[in-house]
Amino acid sequence: MEALPPVRPLDERAMEQTERRLAVLTKPPGSLGFLETLAVWLAGIFRQAPPPVPLRKAVILFAADHGVVAQGVSAYPQAVTAQMVTNFLRGGAAINVLARQMQARLWIADVGVATPLPPAAGLWSCRVRSGSRDLTEAPALTRDEVWRAIGIGRELVRQAAAEEAQLLAFGEMGIGNTTPATALVAIWTRAGLERVVGPGTGLDEQGVARKRQVVAAALQRHRPRPDDPIGALEAVGGLEIAAIVGGLVEAASQALPVVLDGFIVTAAALVASSLVPEARAYWIAGHCSGEPGHRIALDHLGLRPLLDLGMRLGEGTGAVLAFPIVEAAARLCGEMATFEEAGVSGRL
Amino acid sequence: MEALPPVRPLDERAMEQTERRLAVLTKPPGSLGFLETLAVWLAGIFRQAPPPVPLRKAVILFAADHGVVAQGVSAYPQAVTAQMVTNFLRGGAAINVLARQMQARLWIADVGVATPLPPAAGLWSCRVRSGSRDLTEAPALTRDEVWRAIGIGRELVRQAAAEEAQLLAFGEMGIGNTTPATALVAIWTRAGLERVVGPGTGLDEQGVARKRQVVAAALQRHRPRPDDPIGALEAVGGLEIAAIVGGLVEAASQALPVVLDGFIVTAAALVASSLVPEARAYWIAGHCSGEPGHRIALDHLGLRPLLDLGMRLGEGTGAVLAFPIVEAAARLCGEMATFEEAGVSGRL
Repeated sequence: MEALPPVRPLDERAMEQTERRLAVLTKPPGSLGFLETLAVWLAGIFRQAPPPVPLRKAVILFAADHGVVAQGVSAYPQAVTAQMVTNFLRGGAAINVLARQMQARLWIADVGVATPLPPAAGLWSCRVRSGSRDLTEAPALTRDEVWRAIGIGRELVRQAAAEEAQLLAFGEMGIGNTTPATALVAIWTRAGLERVVGPGTGLDEQGVARKRQVVAAALQRHRPRPDDPIGALEAVGGLEIAAIVGGLVEAASQALPVVLDGFIVTAAALVASSLVPEARAYWIAGHCSGEPGHRIALDHLGLRPLLDLGMRLGEGTGAVLAFPIVEAAARLCGEMATFEEAGVSGRL
Repeated sequence: MEALPPVRPLDERAMEQTERRLAVLTKPPGSLGFLETLAVWLAGIFRQAPPPVPLRKAVILFAADHGVVAQGVSAYPQAVTAQMVTNFLRGGAAINVLARQMQARLWIADVGVATPLPPAAGLWSCRVRSGSRDLTEAPALTRDEVWRAIGIGRELVRQAAAEEAQLLAFGEMGIGNTTPATALVAIWTRAGLERVVGPGTGLDEQGVARKRQVVAAALQRHRPRPDDPIGALEAVGGLEIAAIVGGLVEAASQALPVVLDGFIVTAAALVASSLVPEARAYWIAGHCSGEPGHRIALDHLGLRPLLDLGMRLGEGTGAVLAFPIVEAAARLCGEMATFEEAGVSGRL
């Protein structure tokens, strides 16, 4: 087992200073609602009151394939994973549009796409293997493959940190990846499969029923446990999921705040929170997706989503769409005048 | 009675074209959730598929005072209204910070602040009178005052339209204004006062009880009716509320989309929707505030809020914070590649 990086607790002093500042800004106390919680959180991470602005933003997207697609668990063919990576590189996907709008740098990493992708500018080729194995027939990954994918996730975060990113999101692309993610959410939350198995990219009722059987068979076969997160990733994980687990842990170690995206990223967060429990303090939820198990996973992590717009697209889109809210929290805290500065009277 | 402007229905053809385009973009059908609804709505307003991007944004903030503060219905002294206008002009308030972040032009109009404000760059002085009358003792406004305030709201929107604004929000500042807004919400929704009367900027339990009595007394005295919106504004309105009513109607007439802010603006929207029912199609809800009556008012209008962060600050803050979501809808629709353009396979 490789060493995992140490994670420092948030800075209580900067958080208290920020709370005191929020109380004297020209607004009724508490009237910025959850934005005040976000400002305090950012101050604790950056150990600075008020937190810095503007924040340099980045989204790191990991792509990989899944052997379980052989079981008919996705509405799209496996070739779409590689085709979408090409779409990302050309700037035509949803995450490209949102990353441009929010001025976030987009990193694209191939950790295990089944279809060979030619080298391309902007593509980080770090293939561990051509997709995971079919988790109904064998463990999806070996222990070594899991650790290699975790290491890739950590390395990309170190690269982003070296380029001075200050606010991170993770995205994913992998046809079939709601199946391993659902298995992980079921393991961690212990919620019944009738509640956590959903349509993913658009299965019909029959497809959802088949997916439920597939997840049930995998859990029955491998008996993964939440107190063995690496074992769970071997049994029912995926390469992009393991990379995100590594990224989430490394981000916390590098003291970078992370906005979680949807169902897949939140499943990875469940695993990462068992691997390095202190890392959890560095994450917030960008949104709640339309996938039914997402709310259950967020509740398990105790995270309140910033958005709830029924998005179910992945790629990091729900997280990046929430970036301006996080940045607004920091800006309000840093740029608003105090009652004293503005000569505004206090409460009666 | 003055003539109200005509409002054109949204363009069904542009909306259908946008739905067809959304179905062929490189994402599972429907996976952008409510963003798809927003894109179709924008296309219908701009009569253009896909809708234009980027959108030039503006927020028009109306300030006025309220005679009812004599009844002890606010946690802050009346002088704060004028002090906050000065804060807006200096750029130190929450709405200034958010308008800068979201690149929205901020307009500030004095429609009836009680404390005299010296002329200042950036301040539109259009005072109808020094605050409304105490609605427990007399109608808050005369019919002429209501129409003058409506006219000011309309004029400011015409000015913003002349400067080619494409996405509007209204903000307000007026110590005591949750009291008239609560009365209006009670009239329109017929919800009981125990449900719609809230703490506003921060009343304690005793203060909320007093405010409930004040609203009950005003409704008892004036017997305002939702089928007489101008009469209701005379009885229990306010100058900034009437200006926003005018602005909401004029925005629809000018075919400008409006993101509604919090409790006060939504109360104005209830009134405006009775005055010009067709205008309602031009508004969406930016957020749901912490004020308890806000959700009730939004439900009455059939509006789904984009954000639900417990904000209760007014000024237009909740609407402007939602601007990037509306713009994202337009950008995604206009900038994403189609399956055909990107060479991505469709569903199995």
